Amino acid sequence: MASYPFAYRQRVRFGETDTQQVVYYANYLLYAEVGRVAYLRELGIEYQRDFLAHGIDFTIGEAQVKYRAPLRFDEEFDIKVRVGNVRHSSWAFEYALDRADGLHCADVSTVQVVIGADKRAQRMPDGLKLKLERAKGASNGS
Amino acid sequence: MASYPFAYRQRVRFGETDTQQVVYYANYLLYAEVGRVAYLRELGIEYQRDFLAHGIDFTIGEAQVKYRAPLRFDEEFDIKVRVGNVRHSSWAFEYALDRADGLHCADVSTVQVVIGADKRAQRMPDGLKLKLERAKGASNGS
Amino acid sequence: MASYPFAYRQRVRFGETDTQQVVYYANYLLYAEVGRVAYLRELGIEYQRDFLAHGIDFTIGEAQVKYRAPLRFDEEFDIKVRVGNVRHSSWAFEYALDRADGLHCADVSTVQVVIGADKRAQRMPDGLKLKLERAKGASNGS
Amino acid sequence: MASYPFAYRQRVRFGETDTQQVVYYANYLLYAEVGRVAYLRELGIEYQRDFLAHGIDFTIGEAQVKYRAPLRFDEEFDIKVRVGNVRHSSWAFEYALDRADGLHCADVSTVQVVIGADKRAQRMPDGLKLKLERAKGASNGS
Repeated sequence: MASYPFAYRQRVRFGETDTQQVVYYANYLLYAEVGRVAYLRELGIEYQRDFLAHGIDFTIGEAQVKYRAPLRFDEEFDIKVRVGNVRHSSWAFEYALDRADGLHCADVSTVQVVIGADKRAQRMPDGLKLKLERAKGASNGS
Repeated sequence: MASYPFAYRQRVRFGETDTQQVVYYANYLLYAEVGRVAYLRELGIEYQRDFLAHGIDFTIGEAQVKYRAPLRFDEEFDIKVRVGNVRHSSWAFEYALDRADGLHCADVSTVQVVIGADKRAQRMPDGLKLKLERAKGASNGS
Repeated sequence: MASYPFAYRQRVRFGETDTQQVVYYANYLLYAEVGRVAYLRELGIEYQRDFLAHGIDFTIGEAQVKYRAPLRFDEEFDIKVRVGNVRHSSWAFEYALDRADGLHCADVSTVQVVIGADKRAQRMPDGLKLKLERAKGASNGS
Repeated sequence: MASYPFAYRQRVRFGETDTQQVVYYANYLLYAEVGRVAYLRELGIEYQRDFLAHGIDFTIGEAQVKYRAPLRFDEEFDIKVRVGNVRHSSWAFEYALDRADGLHCADVSTVQVVIGADKRAQRMPDGLKLKLERAKGASNGS
């Protein structure tokens, strides 16, 4: 099983919690976004250069969260990210949200779909695909 | 295939959109919550009477979104809800988010887990289970 | 003192609350937006026709909230709105957030600034100004 | 005029922006919260020890934002904070939100009100008041 090559530390904001005094369930997708953006930066994938300059963009086609343990106000946690399946026009990211002391709080996955100016799925540029496959290989230890 | 016995109309708020000028992907789970709360009220399931008064609560164990088409600022849409699998200590809700003109925008599912004061999963009260199963039967047309 | 000619009923969402089990303070500005958009629609001011088609837009220049009493999950409340000062390139909206049973929960004010394609403040079209001044006069009972 | 003794660097999240492709106006109060929590930690004021253990809490009584320039997705910015007026049962924080390159984006102020178990305003403990006054003095250069 692949490990996570990347982790991004954040702290729970008061406004992200709810009446049950834990992080509101939708905010796990907000945290996934923060990790995704940080990991793309780490991989040297630039939104302007690698997407917009090619006349493409990407959108989320699917998202899934499995909640394991709650996060509370002011707790620090790591958003761990790795590349999942890479296809012709989409790729997956897999995330673990772990409290700073190691408690595993959630598993998240998202599928990013590359779209053209017509908003339809289209084949991703070779350079982008290569970077993603290389990152995936690295986290598999291959 | 089961149809949706319940629909709750809402309108996209400006603050729910993002830089791509569509509803931000995490907000589909916020919309699911709005539909879930409204449908529980419709089913006569009261949070105070049917959960808290029994010393129980519920939490979300799993959530999934499949994004089909974007929603934009000020568009009206329906959050359609039905009961999915009902188990000993959890049940599923399935949702369709459809723009008011009928465009199908997303499929969402959530699993609600009944928990005790110790925050662990526990068997749900018979009365609650019966209401959920009856609602499920009704949407299956059985 | 002017009364509020317009009210828009909403219900507190779970995700809008925080660890203090009341609505998170920033969400009062979200509620103000919901009331503002609804009141502009009521006034017959259309974003596309009265702003974008003139090559203009508007942005918020200033916002203020005075918190009077908390709102809790699932409570219904009214967002009451009226027009405040109307100037050459900006106008104010004043809001009262009142729980459905009449409890006064907050006073909010926002200043909307009309901007051109260069994002700088500019004189608002006469038709827009007239509609705002008429609405202001109506709520003053004059 | 007092300067800001404290700054906390953050980066704009995609989900914090809106259809105008800038940070949504209510999120400036979210940013103020992040700076406030970080500054209280810096001042050695602990929520558990200095509030909850005294049977008190605090709530926001008033908030104000003056918007100067927009912030966009992925931009880094500093939340600068200083203590404003310190009264018997409340104190003010003043904030500047400045983009990392120095562009001044917003001025924010909030009034924190100390409340007892009955949720009413009450005199703050001397130790807390002293820390706030010392912090205020420091930022005034006195």
